[in-house]
Amino acid sequence: MSGQSSKRIWIYDTTLRDGSQAEGISLSIEDKLRIARRLDELGIPFIEGGWPGANPKDVQFFWRLKDEPLQQAQVVAFCSTRRPGKKAADDPMLQEILSAGTEWVTIFGKSWDLHVTEGLQTSLEENLAMIGETIAYLKSCGRRVIYDAEHWFDGYRHNRDYAVQTLDAAIAAGAEWLVFCDTNGGTLPHEIARICREVMDRLGDRGGEDLKFGIHTHNDSETAVANAIAAVLEGVEMVQGTIDGYGERCGNANLCSAIPNLQLKLGYHCLDPQRLQKLTETSRFVSEIANLAPDSRAPFVGLSAFAHKGGIHVSAVQRNPLTYEHISPEAVGNHRRIVISEQAGMSNVLAKARNFGIDLHKNDPTCRQLLQKLKEMENEGYQFEAAEASFELLMREVMGDRPDLFELQGFKVHCDRGPGMTHAWATVKVTVEGQNILEAAEGNGPVSALDAALRKALVTFYPRVSDFHLTDYKVRIIDGSSGTSAKTRVLVESSNGVDRWSTVGVSTNIIDASYQAIVEGLEYGLLRQRPSEKVAVTA
Amino acid sequence: MSGQSSKRIWIYDTTLRDGSQAEGISLSIEDKLRIARRLDELGIPFIEGGWPGANPKDVQFFWRLKDEPLQQAQVVAFCSTRRPGKKAADDPMLQEILSAGTEWVTIFGKSWDLHVTEGLQTSLEENLAMIGETIAYLKSCGRRVIYDAEHWFDGYRHNRDYAVQTLDAAIAAGAEWLVFCDTNGGTLPHEIARICREVMDRLGDRGGEDLKFGIHTHNDSETAVANAIAAVLEGVEMVQGTIDGYGERCGNANLCSAIPNLQLKLGYHCLDPQRLQKLTETSRFVSEIANLAPDSRAPFVGLSAFAHKGGIHVSAVQRNPLTYEHISPEAVGNHRRIVISEQAGMSNVLAKARNFGIDLHKNDPTCRQLLQKLKEMENEGYQFEAAEASFELLMREVMGDRPDLFELQGFKVHCDRGPGMTHAWATVKVTVEGQNILEAAEGNGPVSALDAALRKALVTFYPRVSDFHLTDYKVRIIDGSSGTSAKTRVLVESSNGVDRWSTVGVSTNIIDASYQAIVEGLEYGLLRQRPSEKVAVTA
Repeated sequence: MSGQSSKRIWIYDTTLRDGSQAEGISLSIEDKLRIARRLDELGIPFIEGGWPGANPKDVQFFWRLKDEPLQQAQVVAFCSTRRPGKKAADDPMLQEILSAGTEWVTIFGKSWDLHVTEGLQTSLEENLAMIGETIAYLKSCGRRVIYDAEHWFDGYRHNRDYAVQTLDAAIAAGAEWLVFCDTNGGTLPHEIARICREVMDRLGDRGGEDLKFGIHTHNDSETAVANAIAAVLEGVEMVQGTIDGYGERCGNANLCSAIPNLQLKLGYHCLDPQRLQKLTETSRFVSEIANLAPDSRAPFVGLSAFAHKGGIHVSAVQRNPLTYEHISPEAVGNHRRIVISEQAGMSNVLAKARNFGIDLHKNDPTCRQLLQKLKEMENEGYQFEAAEASFELLMREVMGDRPDLFELQGFKVHCDRGPGMTHAWATVKVTVEGQNILEAAEGNGPVSALDAALRKALVTFYPRVSDFHLTDYKVRIIDGSSGTSAKTRVLVESSNGVDRWSTVGVSTNIIDASYQAIVEGLEYGLLRQRPSEKVAVTA
Repeated sequence: MSGQSSKRIWIYDTTLRDGSQAEGISLSIEDKLRIARRLDELGIPFIEGGWPGANPKDVQFFWRLKDEPLQQAQVVAFCSTRRPGKKAADDPMLQEILSAGTEWVTIFGKSWDLHVTEGLQTSLEENLAMIGETIAYLKSCGRRVIYDAEHWFDGYRHNRDYAVQTLDAAIAAGAEWLVFCDTNGGTLPHEIARICREVMDRLGDRGGEDLKFGIHTHNDSETAVANAIAAVLEGVEMVQGTIDGYGERCGNANLCSAIPNLQLKLGYHCLDPQRLQKLTETSRFVSEIANLAPDSRAPFVGLSAFAHKGGIHVSAVQRNPLTYEHISPEAVGNHRRIVISEQAGMSNVLAKARNFGIDLHKNDPTCRQLLQKLKEMENEGYQFEAAEASFELLMREVMGDRPDLFELQGFKVHCDRGPGMTHAWATVKVTVEGQNILEAAEGNGPVSALDAALRKALVTFYPRVSDFHLTDYKVRIIDGSSGTSAKTRVLVESSNGVDRWSTVGVSTNIIDASYQAIVEGLEYGLLRQRPSEKVAVTA
């Protein structure tokens, strides 16, 4: 939009280093290699792999990559400046970073005088020497150097002249990139812009043609992405961040938002457009490997990022998507979702049917019947937003296309607690092909007992149920204010090891609600395995 | 920092309206009332309560508030402009908003020509009439009007002159606030700033002294907070957003980040500083009521927002917190967490004890013991944020001040479903003053049966339990990924008709978890009625 057409912005990913500082993330070498390959496929030009001096595991990561190199990305090793009062050549940390064998290294140094005197407990002069000598030594060993100016913005605000001297030291020693780091994440976009502008003006002539600038931001003020953009608008050419914004405390600048903002809205070139379409899948892959639930609210790549509710709204978005969507979801590999909600209008239902590959027309009486049924069920407390498998079963039922796979006769559940023991047992009765089956099972709670009993009852007729298992279980009390007499809505997610689908049950009795959801989960799983059927995958 | 000292920014919360559009959030009237009271305690001046015309449930919310009004906040009813081709006085939606009986109403209208012709399918002139006549009619009925200019930024970019005409119509009809809405969330901060500046310059003289401007942003570009700040820096005086940033798609501007940025960094006045210290607790309360896991990475209020790892770093942060923290965590009611250290917990426990009026000192061995117990229970899945009655019982237990009111021997619960019937029966055995009591009851679910049986068993010895009832019941699966074998945390709120208190139970068995929470609810209720005791009210 702003016509900065085609200017290149170099994306520098630090998911494997700064990202893995996040609480709750712990990546094995194998995990790191898999993520590095995905980032390479996405077309990220710089991938920071780790800090070999601080983390011995990281050395192996670089060695493994030497055997099976990436296609095009530069893998970068990260390290601090040498220790105070030592020669660079004698610092074991720098030997480790050299042994990583990368062409590029990133060295971070102190910009803020207070961190030099209080943190490192050395002199301001020694810090300048540490920056200069470390970079000069690595250059003499054939490395290309990116210099990360730690605590840049705070340092500049407290002692501007000293902060600039640290950059001078890095330039003189031969750093090719200077990266402004908002390490504590406290700076707001207008301050980022002002400081970047002032410093780049001041250094402009000193570094020569080849000197370039970068930005590294943290999300403590919830402005990390805006801060990166503000710096780019001032002329910075490298953006450092992480996939999904993972990182220490509140995380780093989220590349999944920074990249599409820069490329799709401001016309910068970050990634090949075809590769940008892998962004959503890369985000979900990284959260999968990091073993964190993907954030459904995440901008651009989240499950809800292009979800639409409400009747008029839905027909409008279908006529002209730009009226309700800031970008085309396909540009980042995401897609539009029509959410089935209380206000479900006819157009919602039709759009949903199309998603499932079900042929349904507006004038079809079935459509009105379905809408009626849907409203009744929503009044009873059903919600199909997150239970698309149940919605498809309902749709098939109204259309007369829901085969009777089994007939339920009932269940009994028994929970017992006495001194030092708890029990949960369940018995179910099911009729399949005219035969009555009675089975019982126990579990560590009434719901797992019920699930086990149901699968035991069905497995003889449908051996595939032995592959099914529950992958998620959620409970919502619909009107909390009536206490335990309130209705309960249970959402169950099932899997056959490959796909996942979600179902819903509602009852004043939590066991009964769970039972309904589990039964529909089994039924949907069996239906979707009939080879001739076209069924939707919800995960 | 920037010296805009003490200029007032009016915070407008729309958690109850726009926030509840988020996927997965469904608030009962009782939930909405509880949230409204918390926002009022926080000192939010405008609280948008709902859209009475679109959602009949919302009308009851406003009626309930008439009976028990808030202390100081203005509750605002929300509505669109009248329908095309109708008189304002004949539009039933506007009758609904009037029946809400609020002093302030917010009317949203179309700014973007495309939405008028394609969405509303009416003429550009009629849209101007709809805006003007709706506002004029509501003014004539004694209401004060905030005008939300929907799709403002997109509309302005596409047809600047028409967009400004819509504002002119609102001004002429008597709107006191004009709010620029970035409805699709696609605009970046520098564009927000530029457009706000241009429009306010252009309208400056037209509205007179009393006309004020506001900003309403969405997070689709991950810049909602930065966008709100950019508008404020241009002179806007109202910020609309939601607690925790909940809202449709990627959410609204997160007030939990916008407020501390504006107040602590830019020197604007949003809330009383003492009330700002309730921000973290309000955030967690709202996520609890919304039944969503609080985001530990959330800026300012998240559990990880001020978490520090590593030795040197930790001693540095303790010597001089400003070197590693962008604000003081206490300013927003959060606290520094030193990961793998007891320090943080200790002060928490002491603060908690002080809250309950319990005299506990740092060097008291009880304090260390309590901390140990607390950590064990948190590892098992207990959480006391929203269950302060259970926390107080735990504290009394460690201090040897938890009297044995009754002893539980066990329970049996039986659920049955057959053709056309469901049953839920519970039997409990309790010992009181040496006597064994066995009682049974039925309910419309296993938990209400259990609750009834327990009260039946205790009522002879403690007649007051007949006044007790459950007012809320919430279930959270702690580790969703292990399906129905995961642990369940149950939160129960009890009342004696005057006060309310909350308790917690954890088990892999949902019935057992409910049982623990109900039992503690009864125990706490009996304890708090001993006249000599000072006990805390949690709701």
